[in-house]
Amino acid sequence: MDYMNGPGRNHLFVPGPVNIPDQVIRAMSRQNEDYRSPAIPALTKTLLEDVKKIFKTTTGTPFLFPTTGTGAWESALTNTLSPGDRIVSFSLGQFSLLWIDQQQRLGFSVDVVESDWGYGADLGVLESKLRSDSQHPALLLVDGVSSICALDFRMDEWGVDVALTGSQKALSLPTGLGIVCASPKALEAAKTAKSVRVFFDWKDYLKFYKMGTYWPYTPSIQLLYGLRAGLDLLFEEGLDNVIKRHTRLGTATRLAVAAWGLKNCTAKEENFSDTVTAVVVPPYIDSSEIVKHAWKRYNLSLGLGLNKVAGKVFRIGHLGHLNELQLLGCLSGVEMVLKDIGYPVKLGSGVAAAAAYLSNSTPLIPSRI
Amino acid sequence: MDYMNGPGRNHLFVPGPVNIPDQVIRAMSRQNEDYRSPAIPALTKTLLEDVKKIFKTTTGTPFLFPTTGTGAWESALTNTLSPGDRIVSFSLGQFSLLWIDQQQRLGFSVDVVESDWGYGADLGVLESKLRSDSQHPALLLVDGVSSICALDFRMDEWGVDVALTGSQKALSLPTGLGIVCASPKALEAAKTAKSVRVFFDWKDYLKFYKMGTYWPYTPSIQLLYGLRAGLDLLFEEGLDNVIKRHTRLGTATRLAVAAWGLKNCTAKEENFSDTVTAVVVPPYIDSSEIVKHAWKRYNLSLGLGLNKVAGKVFRIGHLGHLNELQLLGCLSGVEMVLKDIGYPVKLGSGVAAAAAYLSNSTPLIPSRI
Amino acid sequence: MDYMNGPGRNHLFVPGPVNIPDQVIRAMSRQNEDYRSPAIPALTKTLLEDVKKIFKTTTGTPFLFPTTGTGAWESALTNTLSPGDRIVSFSLGQFSLLWIDQQQRLGFSVDVVESDWGYGADLGVLESKLRSDSQHPALLLVDGVSSICALDFRMDEWGVDVALTGSQKALSLPTGLGIVCASPKALEAAKTAKSVRVFFDWKDYLKFYKMGTYWPYTPSIQLLYGLRAGLDLLFEEGLDNVIKRHTRLGTATRLAVAAWGLKNCTAKEENFSDTVTAVVVPPYIDSSEIVKHAWKRYNLSLGLGLNKVAGKVFRIGHLGHLNELQLLGCLSGVEMVLKDIGYPVKLGSGVAAAAAYLSNSTPLIPSRI
Amino acid sequence: MDYMNGPGRNHLFVPGPVNIPDQVIRAMSRQNEDYRSPAIPALTKTLLEDVKKIFKTTTGTPFLFPTTGTGAWESALTNTLSPGDRIVSFSLGQFSLLWIDQQQRLGFSVDVVESDWGYGADLGVLESKLRSDSQHPALLLVDGVSSICALDFRMDEWGVDVALTGSQKALSLPTGLGIVCASPKALEAAKTAKSVRVFFDWKDYLKFYKMGTYWPYTPSIQLLYGLRAGLDLLFEEGLDNVIKRHTRLGTATRLAVAAWGLKNCTAKEENFSDTVTAVVVPPYIDSSEIVKHAWKRYNLSLGLGLNKVAGKVFRIGHLGHLNELQLLGCLSGVEMVLKDIGYPVKLGSGVAAAAAYLSNSTPLIPSRI
Repeated sequence: MDYMNGPGRNHLFVPGPVNIPDQVIRAMSRQNEDYRSPAIPALTKTLLEDVKKIFKTTTGTPFLFPTTGTGAWESALTNTLSPGDRIVSFSLGQFSLLWIDQQQRLGFSVDVVESDWGYGADLGVLESKLRSDSQHPALLLVDGVSSICALDFRMDEWGVDVALTGSQKALSLPTGLGIVCASPKALEAAKTAKSVRVFFDWKDYLKFYKMGTYWPYTPSIQLLYGLRAGLDLLFEEGLDNVIKRHTRLGTATRLAVAAWGLKNCTAKEENFSDTVTAVVVPPYIDSSEIVKHAWKRYNLSLGLGLNKVAGKVFRIGHLGHLNELQLLGCLSGVEMVLKDIGYPVKLGSGVAAAAAYLSNSTPLIPSRI
Repeated sequence: MDYMNGPGRNHLFVPGPVNIPDQVIRAMSRQNEDYRSPAIPALTKTLLEDVKKIFKTTTGTPFLFPTTGTGAWESALTNTLSPGDRIVSFSLGQFSLLWIDQQQRLGFSVDVVESDWGYGADLGVLESKLRSDSQHPALLLVDGVSSICALDFRMDEWGVDVALTGSQKALSLPTGLGIVCASPKALEAAKTAKSVRVFFDWKDYLKFYKMGTYWPYTPSIQLLYGLRAGLDLLFEEGLDNVIKRHTRLGTATRLAVAAWGLKNCTAKEENFSDTVTAVVVPPYIDSSEIVKHAWKRYNLSLGLGLNKVAGKVFRIGHLGHLNELQLLGCLSGVEMVLKDIGYPVKLGSGVAAAAAYLSNSTPLIPSRI
Repeated sequence: MDYMNGPGRNHLFVPGPVNIPDQVIRAMSRQNEDYRSPAIPALTKTLLEDVKKIFKTTTGTPFLFPTTGTGAWESALTNTLSPGDRIVSFSLGQFSLLWIDQQQRLGFSVDVVESDWGYGADLGVLESKLRSDSQHPALLLVDGVSSICALDFRMDEWGVDVALTGSQKALSLPTGLGIVCASPKALEAAKTAKSVRVFFDWKDYLKFYKMGTYWPYTPSIQLLYGLRAGLDLLFEEGLDNVIKRHTRLGTATRLAVAAWGLKNCTAKEENFSDTVTAVVVPPYIDSSEIVKHAWKRYNLSLGLGLNKVAGKVFRIGHLGHLNELQLLGCLSGVEMVLKDIGYPVKLGSGVAAAAAYLSNSTPLIPSRI
Repeated sequence: MDYMNGPGRNHLFVPGPVNIPDQVIRAMSRQNEDYRSPAIPALTKTLLEDVKKIFKTTTGTPFLFPTTGTGAWESALTNTLSPGDRIVSFSLGQFSLLWIDQQQRLGFSVDVVESDWGYGADLGVLESKLRSDSQHPALLLVDGVSSICALDFRMDEWGVDVALTGSQKALSLPTGLGIVCASPKALEAAKTAKSVRVFFDWKDYLKFYKMGTYWPYTPSIQLLYGLRAGLDLLFEEGLDNVIKRHTRLGTATRLAVAAWGLKNCTAKEENFSDTVTAVVVPPYIDSSEIVKHAWKRYNLSLGLGLNKVAGKVFRIGHLGHLNELQLLGCLSGVEMVLKDIGYPVKLGSGVAAAAAYLSNSTPLIPSRI
């Protein structure tokens, strides 16, 4: 078949899948292996131990499902809940919609709290719902697909019962691992949860954990080595530094958006995301044209607005293995696209605003000092 | 972490995951991409069209799930059946046991036909069960994980309703794609099947097929390009030639086993598999010692006997991207292992028997004539 | 050993080695092969035929030496000249100095025409020297290491006798191929040239060309496949489009430099290079600090000023597999470095100037229209 | 272009280039880097230090030329000798012929000691020549291309002045590094040697060694990282174990040849090589047909007989990254080829002889015990 090659690198700024470090691509460029030899359990053991660090948990139990974020959601729900169980869910964006849809299709009773897109979950509503349902054995399930490994997240400290992410997000791997981490309380709940499940069942994993062979079915050898390499890089940089880098890149992006005279789809600063910025375009512009044009002319991949905000926003993903100059190249590209598409942007304005901030906040690379 | 390196190549003869062609490893050694750009749907379209060829179907609809064979099983069952529906299943080996377990846990009423391991499904029993249940709307679901792309399989001609395989088997890719193909009758059944499903639901895929974007959630970019490269190689060799090669390697293996004076766990010739040979060891030998020793001394990976035949058989996988001299190297290694472990084998005997057959049956490589 | 990892990609803007397309890295990620099998000569034949296109010659004979540009120089000289032969050489930059040094050490009588660095060869001087040496059998040898495949070059039309380049420059491969192309007149001269040579001798290659086995000694299998992939990409983009892209990136860089209020080391427009820009820094700045700082803080690799201009200039390489947003990311990085190092640059100024030009001149990517 | 693919792996048993470990292929699958950044000198420093270990020298100075073995030869000669200097060379095989040809073309006075091919150098002749030339300042130059890293070699202990090898031989890398190691006496000789040289001149390297930047011209970044990975593997296995493995594989090969009733081209046991075995075929067989057929039918790459022994011998290379079962697969293939080509071999006979020896001599893999 014909590929759609362009000169130079693709600039990948969708909110996932994200840029993979070359070290990870190398680690994954390998043959299959017998996953029942001693080598793969030995590797898996280090992964399970180390993956807990990205959830900031010492008491949680992680599962590395060969699936996507959607599968990780399903695993979180079906292992802890029985059909008819009540879930309080916040509808505040496309992926919350999708998770709610999954919750309903899996037979749970979903109490959907609607909010305008661009606003976060109203914790006051949550508190009152929890209070009114006194002596509830509520579990806190967190979709961390776009946050874990990029934003501050503390499973133990915050009392999270199930947290999950996908390998193609801030972990900067290919798609294929749905990583779910369960608290002791969640594991306990799993013993009585009646939702039908086999592929996503924690029980099978726990059985093989006990045997020390770890895998109830065949894992991707390549993703295991890739995860090893990815975690090594994360720990070398330091998880806190990784989070700071995301803060830096997110802030820089928002400064650029403001300099262009455009609005962030997220209304309040407290809800800003350091992993993705949804930019609202003026009514006379179709944001999907921006995304198409960026790809066709500048080899720049931006995210579409989805569902309610289709045509109205485009998204700049700034998570994962990414640095300042990559982002500035992207921002410069967005400026040219905006100009091409008819928005009166001053070229260089967003880049200047972002660079002014970055030149004050970017640390030296520790291995090179 | 420390890796368990050995000199020279690993000789991978487990029944999966299998040897990956270098062309596929290369094709997969790549960055992530935006799966919503026009490039990935264009690629996916060719894959869905071409994957039908390996099932020998023109009327089937394929699904490329980011999962394993176990997930593909679950997708086949939950999309076509409702809880309580009756399944006739044959219990004749470890993976049939696992599938039956899944069927039971998913809430189906499983009519298990027991047979001794090493014997195939008793089709007479099946026929009488079907006849006694007259005017049944039975669907034929086939677990082709260890056969499709290696053995003769004809979905349309044989009236199969759902067939499935996994990428890490005869397709010779890494683990991560569960490939399910549904007949029109199966798709029709999916409309009324009441089993709970979301991640594995065909409906979501069909919706995105119609839109031309193909993916309800993020696929592995790398596996898509890998599948493209793998299919290109299969078609270059010719699917019929691939099947003949498996017949050749399977026959050669069985000749070697006979020459060693050992028995095939499969009793009748009509049930011999050209993808794996389970070799029965004498009672005074623990077959798991053979597997351990092969790996520790000769960098040879063999399959353990599982469950009922644990300790009693070891398995030689001879499927996927493999040729005559690779197999002969393996057989020679098995001979040395048998000798080491105390079985009185005549070194060279199995290799000689296999080579005598192969030197009469191996064709010239077409691209080199 | 410890590697000097940094977050995100390295931004490689030295004038060589340059960014390699992922397609080439993939093509080279491979095993060794027997170079005496029919496969390698068949591959080599296509390479020799296609490599002539990048020299724009139909009558030339190319040689793919396993060496660097320095070795290619030596091959060009020793195959065409005898010790004591006179060479007119222009001293106008670091690499001309190095080539002149090589010419002298190889025993030729070098008539060095000195010019200030930053000025091109004075063709008037050359003409008068050639005229005064009437009936000379002069050969025209061109060091195209930093130009061929990036700038307009026409071997046949311009009457060039030996042209050469290195794989790690505009061809965008790893270092390791010194590509030399000889006109019929040069081949004729080689028959009588008395310079001592063995490894670099064209005669051995021509003997193996005649036999159809092509290689007098072992080539790098990986570089041959890499060259194949690299040429395929070049021809897909179109050599003329590649040259236009270099013009575009070179122009954009110079516009940025001017916007920063800095000077191009190259004095006259007619001598501007579209593959590298040497930027003169103010006397109070040590340009080597710019290069160090860029690498330490922004993962940006710039070129040092060499020899006479050490400390006075830094170089931005803009050749090879590179696009607009990569360059803009680099320019934005240079701005931040200049600011960090104490030069009063207006952040965004160079990027704005470059982007204004690029947004008017960048074509759509043909495969995506 | 069309590639000459075949099913399964290529079995590479030419005496070079040899099988590359996957770890090395991975390490080399990478982007270019600025070789003037601190990272590459830091890497080079470890390489130069560690490469001395494979020569077993502490006083030698290594050079990593971007060239082949032929270039390494030229570097060894031109840096230590002046035109007209006398060399005693032994003519005893194809590569000695080629080196003698190079010596003559480089202008040295070569005293060729002829011996029948298949016999080693007559050390008695050498001794008498050295004695008769009393008070000679003779240097001992050793072509270790097919031996260093595979056979016992001790530069310091044996008083070798220049030793050299190529990366595509026992080091198991791609072609592209000519590794030359010079004793202090050789370095001293280089100061006065008058042979013309530039690319291959040690002086330029020594100048850059002193500066700590190491490279007078651009190295292959990929080969440097590949060499690092290759050396790491060698040291992990242990150089002495690597040598023992070569002894084992060489011995096994010779036992197979004897079992087939064929003769080793090397007459005396003391001259047997543990890296390659040249097998003499009966007069009624053309050995080049064996090589062709092996490649066309069994994807097996064997070495041709060259020059005087063309058509009379074929060669089995058994050096580099290779283990027992790979060799046994090859030997089994050779048996089938011999049968196909009309030689009355008993299938399994050579494999049995080799396996009998190997099953007694192969150690457990240390990392797996």
